[in-house]
Amino acid sequence: MLTIEERQPPPAMVGTSPFIDCDVHVTIPSRESLWPFMSERWRRHDEQFAGNPPHGASYYPRASPGAARVDAWPGDGKPPGSDLGFMQEHYLDRWNLGYGVLGPLLIGGKSYSRNPGYADALARATNDWVVQDWLDLDPRLRSSIVVPYEFPDLAAAEVRRVARDSRFVQVYLQIRTSMPLGNRAYWPLYEAAVEFGLPIGVHFGGSGGPAITGCGWPSYYLEDHVGNSQTFQSQLTSLICEGVFERYPELRFVLIEGGVGWLPTLAWRLDHAFEEFRDELGHVSRKPSELIAEHVWLTSQPIEEPADPASLTELLNLYPSVLNRLMFASDYPHWDFDAPDEVLHKLKLSPSAQDRFLRLNASELYRLAE
Amino acid sequence: MLTIEERQPPPAMVGTSPFIDCDVHVTIPSRESLWPFMSERWRRHDEQFAGNPPHGASYYPRASPGAARVDAWPGDGKPPGSDLGFMQEHYLDRWNLGYGVLGPLLIGGKSYSRNPGYADALARATNDWVVQDWLDLDPRLRSSIVVPYEFPDLAAAEVRRVARDSRFVQVYLQIRTSMPLGNRAYWPLYEAAVEFGLPIGVHFGGSGGPAITGCGWPSYYLEDHVGNSQTFQSQLTSLICEGVFERYPELRFVLIEGGVGWLPTLAWRLDHAFEEFRDELGHVSRKPSELIAEHVWLTSQPIEEPADPASLTELLNLYPSVLNRLMFASDYPHWDFDAPDEVLHKLKLSPSAQDRFLRLNASELYRLAE
Repeated sequence: MLTIEERQPPPAMVGTSPFIDCDVHVTIPSRESLWPFMSERWRRHDEQFAGNPPHGASYYPRASPGAARVDAWPGDGKPPGSDLGFMQEHYLDRWNLGYGVLGPLLIGGKSYSRNPGYADALARATNDWVVQDWLDLDPRLRSSIVVPYEFPDLAAAEVRRVARDSRFVQVYLQIRTSMPLGNRAYWPLYEAAVEFGLPIGVHFGGSGGPAITGCGWPSYYLEDHVGNSQTFQSQLTSLICEGVFERYPELRFVLIEGGVGWLPTLAWRLDHAFEEFRDELGHVSRKPSELIAEHVWLTSQPIEEPADPASLTELLNLYPSVLNRLMFASDYPHWDFDAPDEVLHKLKLSPSAQDRFLRLNASELYRLAE
Repeated sequence: MLTIEERQPPPAMVGTSPFIDCDVHVTIPSRESLWPFMSERWRRHDEQFAGNPPHGASYYPRASPGAARVDAWPGDGKPPGSDLGFMQEHYLDRWNLGYGVLGPLLIGGKSYSRNPGYADALARATNDWVVQDWLDLDPRLRSSIVVPYEFPDLAAAEVRRVARDSRFVQVYLQIRTSMPLGNRAYWPLYEAAVEFGLPIGVHFGGSGGPAITGCGWPSYYLEDHVGNSQTFQSQLTSLICEGVFERYPELRFVLIEGGVGWLPTLAWRLDHAFEEFRDELGHVSRKPSELIAEHVWLTSQPIEEPADPASLTELLNLYPSVLNRLMFASDYPHWDFDAPDEVLHKLKLSPSAQDRFLRLNASELYRLAE
């Protein structure tokens, strides 16, 4: 605890003339106190978005912490996604969930601390809390391992600490890292994941430091939201170019909440560039599309929604390996939640492909018993 | 010219003990002098890539300045693309070109100077040189206007200076700008373009400052090359979100050398996000896909090359407006040049679509007489 020395009050006058203070602050007492001075349009914006970083790299809507559905509040003051009983009733039981893979999120971006000790403590505490308050209480739940991934040695240690509990089924990262994920700085973490046969799940979001586009900071949350997909493309490119999948032939990546439709085009482009720049990537011996087909899984939410849903299926059929790697995700309790029955209207699949999508792909990847 | 004062030699000794200098430099006399100490693999890399910035944001291959085809050297010591007579024989006459739109490039990235006076002088000189050495000598040639686009007031002035010459058919930017292109800082440039009915052509490349991915600097040139497409996606998103196309209903953008196949997925995603975040973008009244269909053109090289070329056509058919906006580009004299007959093997089109692609779309956009 900080202790503050008590000070004597200063003399009422300094010299004989009135003095000048060049740094005196006033504080706006509350968010609401500026509203009388704003038009309705910007008042609404203030309510929804303000408090987010100026570049929009945060969660929508502000008014709903944790970007949650308005009906996902347990009702006793707890934030959405924090009450098992409520979640069972609201989601797990209602849709007859087989297994759910938790992706623990800390409100307020705490998990990205630059303080290694604190980042580590936070990750450890989160994983222990997940065991006690979730995994031990509902046998349908599995979890991702939260790790201080910008400190890969600490992250690897945390994987090794908790991975013996087989209810932890993947290592959890966020897509906006400080460096591209292929970078060898992250390899110690991948090594730990491979030791336990765990996939690396990389989720939408994060704030690694660099501007979130290749041309600087955009202005709107929409750009942040849509722009995550571009970062997923850059990360997958990096993983391939750095030879991560050849160094760790058992390593698998799950791209969570990054969209799907960009994959065929990117794979075509990578394959062609790989032929052209073969000499630069002497350490990579296999075609990018082959590496993707073996090492990369994707989740559905938010799946692209063309005006005619058939367009999406046609697109994915151009790149058949995707359908063996695509797994259902709801993003519960977030505002853009996809229920299992909803998503099947957005993504038209044959009965067998539907079964792979809703069950089989995930149970194989995460080794979930039938 | 700098003048250097002549100095007296220092005394041979300082004090009585040998002294220590903590900063003495040696200079590697030539690129080749380290080769005896390198393996063949890294010697080759040194020859091909070294000299490029460490993050790979430059041109391939280094050994061929201007990223040129090895057969595109005029042969009298001039760099590729610098000799009209050679270009006529090697490309323009050989394929019976109707019109060619020049995109003047300065070797060594000179056009991106942060010195506003110099950047302006360089752009003006380039445009005047283009008139004298190219446009005045071959009636098939048209040109882009080079502008110091990071200083939009100067860039607008340069557009106004040269645009009365109708052989200048677009304003020329590079995709990696300092800020996303929707930013109002760039609007004065767009205003000048609209005044003269000129499209803005945005070409692969550039170095605006921010890391070239949303997760920092990648390691390999391949990542830079493939990654340009992600920046095109971010730029188009920005143009839409900032309301540029609604502020300038006559403004058209041409995305040059950024790929094509990513457009349908991005448009779907933008349309959906636009519905969800309508309130944030109160200044945008129309769906992103409608704005794209009206305001955005694309060029073909390097078109995506899936194993089965039919896949690309199928993909583009999912988003029909693309085919009314796609224009042939060869990228001559660069190493990944696409001849007109080659590209029609990569992109299977009906006869009428082929005519639009090879002629009609460009002649309408750039107002080229039949």
